Amino acid sequence: MDESGSLLLAIFAAFASAKVAGEVMIRLGQPPVIGELAAGVLVGPSVLGWVPIEGSDGAVMLLLAELGVIVLLFEVGLETHPSELRAVGRQAAAVAVLGVALPFAAGYAVTVGAGREAIESAFVATALVATSVGVTGRVLADMGRLAARESRVILGAAVIDDVLGLLVLTVVAGLAADTLSGGQIVALVAEAIAFVVVLLLLGPPVVEKIGHLLAAPRIPRAPFALALTLLLGLSVAAEEIGLAAIVGAFLAGSVLSGTRDRFALEEPMRPVSDFLTPFFFVVTGAQIDVGSFAKGNVLALAAVITVVAIAGKLAGGILGARSLGMRSGVIVGVGMVPRGEVGIIVAGLALRAGVVTADVFGAVLAMVVVTTLAAPPALQVLWRRAG
Amino acid sequence: MDESGSLLLAIFAAFASAKVAGEVMIRLGQPPVIGELAAGVLVGPSVLGWVPIEGSDGAVMLLLAELGVIVLLFEVGLETHPSELRAVGRQAAAVAVLGVALPFAAGYAVTVGAGREAIESAFVATALVATSVGVTGRVLADMGRLAARESRVILGAAVIDDVLGLLVLTVVAGLAADTLSGGQIVALVAEAIAFVVVLLLLGPPVVEKIGHLLAAPRIPRAPFALALTLLLGLSVAAEEIGLAAIVGAFLAGSVLSGTRDRFALEEPMRPVSDFLTPFFFVVTGAQIDVGSFAKGNVLALAAVITVVAIAGKLAGGILGARSLGMRSGVIVGVGMVPRGEVGIIVAGLALRAGVVTADVFGAVLAMVVVTTLAAPPALQVLWRRAG
Repeated sequence: MDESGSLLLAIFAAFASAKVAGEVMIRLGQPPVIGELAAGVLVGPSVLGWVPIEGSDGAVMLLLAELGVIVLLFEVGLETHPSELRAVGRQAAAVAVLGVALPFAAGYAVTVGAGREAIESAFVATALVATSVGVTGRVLADMGRLAARESRVILGAAVIDDVLGLLVLTVVAGLAADTLSGGQIVALVAEAIAFVVVLLLLGPPVVEKIGHLLAAPRIPRAPFALALTLLLGLSVAAEEIGLAAIVGAFLAGSVLSGTRDRFALEEPMRPVSDFLTPFFFVVTGAQIDVGSFAKGNVLALAAVITVVAIAGKLAGGILGARSLGMRSGVIVGVGMVPRGEVGIIVAGLALRAGVVTADVFGAVLAMVVVTTLAAPPALQVLWRRAG
Repeated sequence: MDESGSLLLAIFAAFASAKVAGEVMIRLGQPPVIGELAAGVLVGPSVLGWVPIEGSDGAVMLLLAELGVIVLLFEVGLETHPSELRAVGRQAAAVAVLGVALPFAAGYAVTVGAGREAIESAFVATALVATSVGVTGRVLADMGRLAARESRVILGAAVIDDVLGLLVLTVVAGLAADTLSGGQIVALVAEAIAFVVVLLLLGPPVVEKIGHLLAAPRIPRAPFALALTLLLGLSVAAEEIGLAAIVGAFLAGSVLSGTRDRFALEEPMRPVSDFLTPFFFVVTGAQIDVGSFAKGNVLALAAVITVVAIAGKLAGGILGARSLGMRSGVIVGVGMVPRGEVGIIVAGLALRAGVVTADVFGAVLAMVVVTTLAAPPALQVLWRRAG
């Protein structure tokens, strides 16, 4: 397979740079994920160009990134039993709805206020909506905090938020292209809600009843093989009904979390995650074009959007989780701040569709970079203070 | 990452079908790898078309396959200390050289005898040369026989054989395109030999001295992360000097095999292999176009080539390993029989270059299918009889 020579080199560059940068960050007392994102910027097309994100080789890197993030979300799901999600359901729903509505409304208002078109403003507002649960989940896992009540609220809210964010994107894109009927929107919303609710309600009792069957096949390490099959299957199912694959991956992990005492699926999952997850963060970093920040009068707009992005999620967290107290509300809010790949995807779609200009695109990217890089250390500091 | 929807579906189809077919084979008393190859034929383009092997999506599947086989060879290498390879060095070298020379000479003779051009015959002969160490290594690992003396000879011979096979391919392709000078051939041979010898001689003492440093970084599970980095790095290095990535992967594992007592790297490697290795076998199966067997007067030529392919390796094993006795020689010979992906790559290159016709291509594929599918069960039977 001689042709894949340069591709294997890109994979080596991505993996090795991620681990080196992660090590540097740990020694600096920072979350390693920041190093992996920064390594991605460095090895990506806008600086060294070692890791492609376009063309056939880019498709491979994006797929490795996708496998990395679904494996990560599966791990997070494994540590999040549906009953624990249900226990924080009210707060999580409130945090998610407020964390979508507030940034969207404020983002739309300030962008229109800056003299932009309504549709361009709607896309900027959409890029402010979806939390990157990958970044937050990784930080929580690295800190060993996945079991905390605040983490449950963040993860529950992030899943709902992903559903809401994708619905907002579908609606805005449909309005922009004038292709979406009211009936389709309703159908999409119904499908998405049904998928999540059915899995969370029916999954646990089914697994409790027939979970022991994971060990029935004679292939080596059958429970792990079946868990991977369910992970891939639910990720595909989520994509097929218009949700992100990571929602399916998280639900697969969550549904199987009841089998932990018997099969300890998190143990074989960890090395797979060690191998694949860095590609997600490196590729996310590689998608950031540092040159785009220099285009046009970006800085002022970028600053405003970033403030809105942070304030909106913080307010959503504090208001939505007010029953947990102020300190926990702030932690939840900060946990919802990183936009990561979702913001980049929305901005990239809008740029390719010609509905946002290059300077607005640069401003959105700056917002993504700042929220993604700032939230993990902030979370670490807040939690250390909370003890 | 909505665009990768169908790709994730292909990955799910590949993985799930591999595990189901592996399970069926185990229940039939056959090696699961046969099931994975057969599943690949079924889900590949020539039957169901669920798993692409061309275009951008195909590039992703081929890369997953490549990661799968380098992980597998790394595992095999981890169980093969260089000193054990050196102990069987003489036999392995003899098996490899005879197992390359005999099938090449006989394959060339029968194809020319069938009235084909010299260059077409040379490509057919080349496709008969290289053993698929992936298939044999997997069978040996599944049977828990990697530590046996015969297995050492097979693995050592397969590595040398891979080096020789790639050199033969380079020379034949260079002669066909009239682009390769004598000096370049010598340089290529020297580089390849230096790479293997230097790693096997210097690797173990270096690892013995500084192996404990694998645990020095503060990133979680640092020894495993560094092992993966070495695996990817040596795979890339092997490709850069014109060898197959799997040679570098095997050597990376072999060099690190001295750290087993301390780090037990095979434990975190196993789940990674459980996840990725099936893609290698499914994609190899998917590359087989069942339709090509129907083209032209394939059957007679296919039968002759297949007999030559099996007889050549068997004779190479029996003669090369005659010091181990007849029974072990037969086991070694059978272990060298599967041609797998290497034969397909050679035939595909020749077909695309227009130097073999479609019917000869079909005959080579038939040889690959028969040798790959027949060797694992034969090996299992032989070894059960040997006790």
